[in-house]
Amino acid sequence: VQAQDPDFERRVRDSFARQSVMRLLGASLAEVGPGTTTIVLPYRADLAQQDGFVHAGVLSTVADSAGGYAGYTLMPAGSRVLTTEYKMHFLAPAKGERFLATATVVKPGRTLTVCEMRVLAEQGGERKLVALGTQTLICLRPDAAP
Amino acid sequence: VQAQDPDFERRVRDSFARQSVMRLLGASLAEVGPGTTTIVLPYRADLAQQDGFVHAGVLSTVADSAGGYAGYTLMPAGSRVLTTEYKMHFLAPAKGERFLATATVVKPGRTLTVCEMRVLAEQGGERKLVALGTQTLICLRPDAAP
Amino acid sequence: VQAQDPDFERRVRDSFARQSVMRLLGASLAEVGPGTTTIVLPYRADLAQQDGFVHAGVLSTVADSAGGYAGYTLMPAGSRVLTTEYKMHFLAPAKGERFLATATVVKPGRTLTVCEMRVLAEQGGERKLVALGTQTLICLRPDAAP
Amino acid sequence: VQAQDPDFERRVRDSFARQSVMRLLGASLAEVGPGTTTIVLPYRADLAQQDGFVHAGVLSTVADSAGGYAGYTLMPAGSRVLTTEYKMHFLAPAKGERFLATATVVKPGRTLTVCEMRVLAEQGGERKLVALGTQTLICLRPDAAP
Repeated sequence: VQAQDPDFERRVRDSFARQSVMRLLGASLAEVGPGTTTIVLPYRADLAQQDGFVHAGVLSTVADSAGGYAGYTLMPAGSRVLTTEYKMHFLAPAKGERFLATATVVKPGRTLTVCEMRVLAEQGGERKLVALGTQTLICLRPDAAP
Repeated sequence: VQAQDPDFERRVRDSFARQSVMRLLGASLAEVGPGTTTIVLPYRADLAQQDGFVHAGVLSTVADSAGGYAGYTLMPAGSRVLTTEYKMHFLAPAKGERFLATATVVKPGRTLTVCEMRVLAEQGGERKLVALGTQTLICLRPDAAP
Repeated sequence: VQAQDPDFERRVRDSFARQSVMRLLGASLAEVGPGTTTIVLPYRADLAQQDGFVHAGVLSTVADSAGGYAGYTLMPAGSRVLTTEYKMHFLAPAKGERFLATATVVKPGRTLTVCEMRVLAEQGGERKLVALGTQTLICLRPDAAP
Repeated sequence: VQAQDPDFERRVRDSFARQSVMRLLGASLAEVGPGTTTIVLPYRADLAQQDGFVHAGVLSTVADSAGGYAGYTLMPAGSRVLTTEYKMHFLAPAKGERFLATATVVKPGRTLTVCEMRVLAEQGGERKLVALGTQTLICLRPDAAP
């Protein structure tokens, strides 16, 4: 895939910087390429569910942003992106030192874009798939009627 | 529906109190009944995505916990609950003074339970549906093989 | 909800009549109202999976059409409707004399519409919920660019 | 992945042969390997939705069976398999001479197995991705309590 906006990375990083919840969670945008991004989330005890693992919703939050920005890399300058729906499977307890949420665009589109997301847990140098899902994004184009 | 464990509310509230991410987000468990719970999330600027609305993943986090605990009300004492998957639709921008995530069990089961979740945004005394979804839970029973 | 096209029922029934797979499965469009439809599917042995129950995909096929036409009732004359994604849960074995797939629009929209679908199995005068799901539809408007 | 039952292919093919709906649709089980299967569906006009393309539910039916049998290859002799839920995205109109639904196990488990499914349309020697999704299966083990 190729991005139509040569300045896509700056546009994506600017938008990510405005997602205040990413700061709250301690997540950072590690990689940005055409149709793909990776967000890194270090483990913190205050992200946990009742058993001490990272809450499924927190994994979903970084996976959703990774997907949204993977899609946004391919959208035109001046556009906005919104998630219309996503689904996540949780395959193993989210234990690890940090988590990597990687998303890739499966089908870019003028209006709708579909992404796949995978979340890996990293522990002692090993990586394990702990969650995966799919997502639909809508592009609100700069020329669209309100 | 009827809960088999008469002490279900205390069990659910104890577990919720151990979900440290709920404190991080400022969410509280408002209602607990057999097969249903409601979690309340007041708006905070640090829960936002790039446009200032509450992040879809944050809505999902409270909806997922609401569903998990709705299912957990019907599970036996000594059991544990995990989300195996969920899907959420985002129907309108999550703007409001606070958000109410209500979940209800659609199908309880010995092993798997299916829930529906709805998130309402409350603003100026009015409520609007902003997200809905469905979820699968697995019950890890006290008598289960490891 | 109110349909903007007063002739919505004829438009929906004409489109349903062109879905040749509905004839193959023996499904018929029982009810059409603003934002809702019901499709009826009598049991047939040649609709079964390996255990003799109706295949999950067949239930999904009628649920998907029920949802698509529930959404289509609210779309303008001259538009077309497509499913962009759906998810279905299967709650109990699909045994019964006939099955009723009912869909309702949760959120109509200019571009995207979200529906809920439920499939009931009818046996000996009793009805049981066997499947439920949610769906996203896209409206291709008559005035849209190709 | 490795199958624990050396006779998995015969077991899967026997079960597929009992899915009478596969004969109704004209689908056949092309490939069976440990953790993966492919089902082939030739185009037929009586599988169509209102625009003449194969109905999304028909694509889902073969994708669901492909996933179910991908998971079943890894389950023990004497077990049964059921789909508990799946989600499908429809990326492009299902036009083609035939369709190939390929599923692979992402996470096998004692009780639950998660699969990914992809449906390709084949036309004039070219293949195009038209649908993708994810699925949860449950294994009913021969030693399980009723």
